[in-house]
Amino acid sequence: MSPNLTNRRVILSSRPKGVPTAEHFTVDECAVPELNDGEILIKTEYWSIDPAMRGWTNDAPNYMPPVELGTAMRSFAVGEVVASRNPEFSEGEIVSGLLGWQRFAVSDGSNVQGRFTNTDLPSSLALGILGLNGVTAYFGLLDICEPKEGDTVVVSTAAGAVGSAVGQIAKLKGCRTVGITGSDEKVDLCKESFGYDAAINYRTGDLGAALKQACPDGVDCYFDNTCGPISDTVMTQLAHGARITVCGTVSLTDWDPIPVGPRVHRQLMVARARMQGLLVFDFKERFPEAIDQLATWVRDGKVAQNEHILEGAEAARGGIEMLYEGKNTGKLLVRVD
Amino acid sequence: MSPNLTNRRVILSSRPKGVPTAEHFTVDECAVPELNDGEILIKTEYWSIDPAMRGWTNDAPNYMPPVELGTAMRSFAVGEVVASRNPEFSEGEIVSGLLGWQRFAVSDGSNVQGRFTNTDLPSSLALGILGLNGVTAYFGLLDICEPKEGDTVVVSTAAGAVGSAVGQIAKLKGCRTVGITGSDEKVDLCKESFGYDAAINYRTGDLGAALKQACPDGVDCYFDNTCGPISDTVMTQLAHGARITVCGTVSLTDWDPIPVGPRVHRQLMVARARMQGLLVFDFKERFPEAIDQLATWVRDGKVAQNEHILEGAEAARGGIEMLYEGKNTGKLLVRVD
Repeated sequence: MSPNLTNRRVILSSRPKGVPTAEHFTVDECAVPELNDGEILIKTEYWSIDPAMRGWTNDAPNYMPPVELGTAMRSFAVGEVVASRNPEFSEGEIVSGLLGWQRFAVSDGSNVQGRFTNTDLPSSLALGILGLNGVTAYFGLLDICEPKEGDTVVVSTAAGAVGSAVGQIAKLKGCRTVGITGSDEKVDLCKESFGYDAAINYRTGDLGAALKQACPDGVDCYFDNTCGPISDTVMTQLAHGARITVCGTVSLTDWDPIPVGPRVHRQLMVARARMQGLLVFDFKERFPEAIDQLATWVRDGKVAQNEHILEGAEAARGGIEMLYEGKNTGKLLVRVD
Repeated sequence: MSPNLTNRRVILSSRPKGVPTAEHFTVDECAVPELNDGEILIKTEYWSIDPAMRGWTNDAPNYMPPVELGTAMRSFAVGEVVASRNPEFSEGEIVSGLLGWQRFAVSDGSNVQGRFTNTDLPSSLALGILGLNGVTAYFGLLDICEPKEGDTVVVSTAAGAVGSAVGQIAKLKGCRTVGITGSDEKVDLCKESFGYDAAINYRTGDLGAALKQACPDGVDCYFDNTCGPISDTVMTQLAHGARITVCGTVSLTDWDPIPVGPRVHRQLMVARARMQGLLVFDFKERFPEAIDQLATWVRDGKVAQNEHILEGAEAARGGIEMLYEGKNTGKLLVRVD
């Protein structure tokens, strides 16, 4: 590799309170350092935009320490190994991991999480259905919700990267699928692209009444990405023995102090229901199993990923806000410029 | 049987808002009717006082319809079959079930839930450790919390009829047991009678700090009978993979509208914890297994039931209030007069 490569990054330049917007990020350029022994250089192709990134920008306790100001925004990305001084990686391999919002990532391999081996398929899938979104849907639905054929499965953020995969997998398993989403456009997307039996726009009309109509026998499985008022409504319509996967809390942006809401205890008792938190990394050893299954479903046309692609670093700056406003119409990605 | 037997009952005479007190009940007397074919006459020995009875006195949706005004208060009771015109029951058998607060119960057998066969042990145990309280503790702990040896198990209402059984069973399973209770007297009871490794009086001092000291590695299992603020505190100290049994909501007396409290979603996610509602009747087919095991533990001196016995019908009237005020020091029973 030329020692004269220029890195182009999107750095966190100020700390937001709540959801970060374009103003909290700056695009800069700097030199790519020489590789040391054990290091690889990855040229990124796509950056991911995920709900967890909001938390990473805030200086509050989380799974990971906050992103330091002045450094490239932490994010998942996929790209090609273009130079390697690490025997475990070969030039030409496609890898994904927490590579950050930067054109070139130098890595010792520790932040590489996956090798994208289904190279007959587009590498952008490694950030969605064949990456963490896909495995989150796969394990969160199959291992925590444990859907049975004929169950009614309700999914919040039903058109999103995780939700759309949940809906499609549940359908493959013989369930009746009901999606909750935030626009009429996404309602159409849910039905036409993701095969939901019913889809509800929670922003218009009475969600409780619409849900009751869509789930006359109650909700057997609920895959929740929202927390907040949508979840509160679904929890009033649980079927006996319902299982709830708590995967995300996108509708509540601030957890300090812990927000209040209707207590779920009695609903869990009356329905003898189970509510369980998911962190997908607990299933890490089984990721290859899930990704191979998902890739097969993608090739067979049984599972699809809708993508919403932002073009380049400048556009990335407003991406997290866009995600929290629900303005994306598929897995939100940045094509690296 | 003489046709001239007099029944003595405690009837619900007015409908409370919230917890019923002595003023909502009246003691009356009436004739015991002749038995029809298929019926049995049970002379009750002990009546039970349980948290669920509060709900039964209120005119709100619940597992069961509310108790009608002017009828004997619904309750569990144990007694002897003194006359039988039902071939499935013999005179002299000891049975328990929803026989109500009355000296004589006429039954077609449908409200008889258990036959007390461990007659070497006192019949009052059929209303506690060898009855629903015991099986609630048994299945709620072993099947829902799934404690492993070395786990830290926290129990709210730790000295109560269910809680004390949970604590003792968890101890038998090799767990570290921590009880939360409402007086210094009960703290002593927890340690001395029920073998808790630590016990905390939540009414004095800082529950969060005391819990942290008692559970330095966090809470693996939480058996909750309270809901409310005690539960809110325990939920902040969950260990990775914690399991929570939601068995009762005794600290919140009114669920219309649903009370608000801190949202549990993020705690469940961060700890990858599971919270599940219990209704013990779902395990009905396995009750004999549990009761035989519990009876063996009682005979071996490994599990004990503390009893708080009220004497007679007049004393029963204030029993539910007493239970909700936490003034009882063991399984609250009425000895029938």
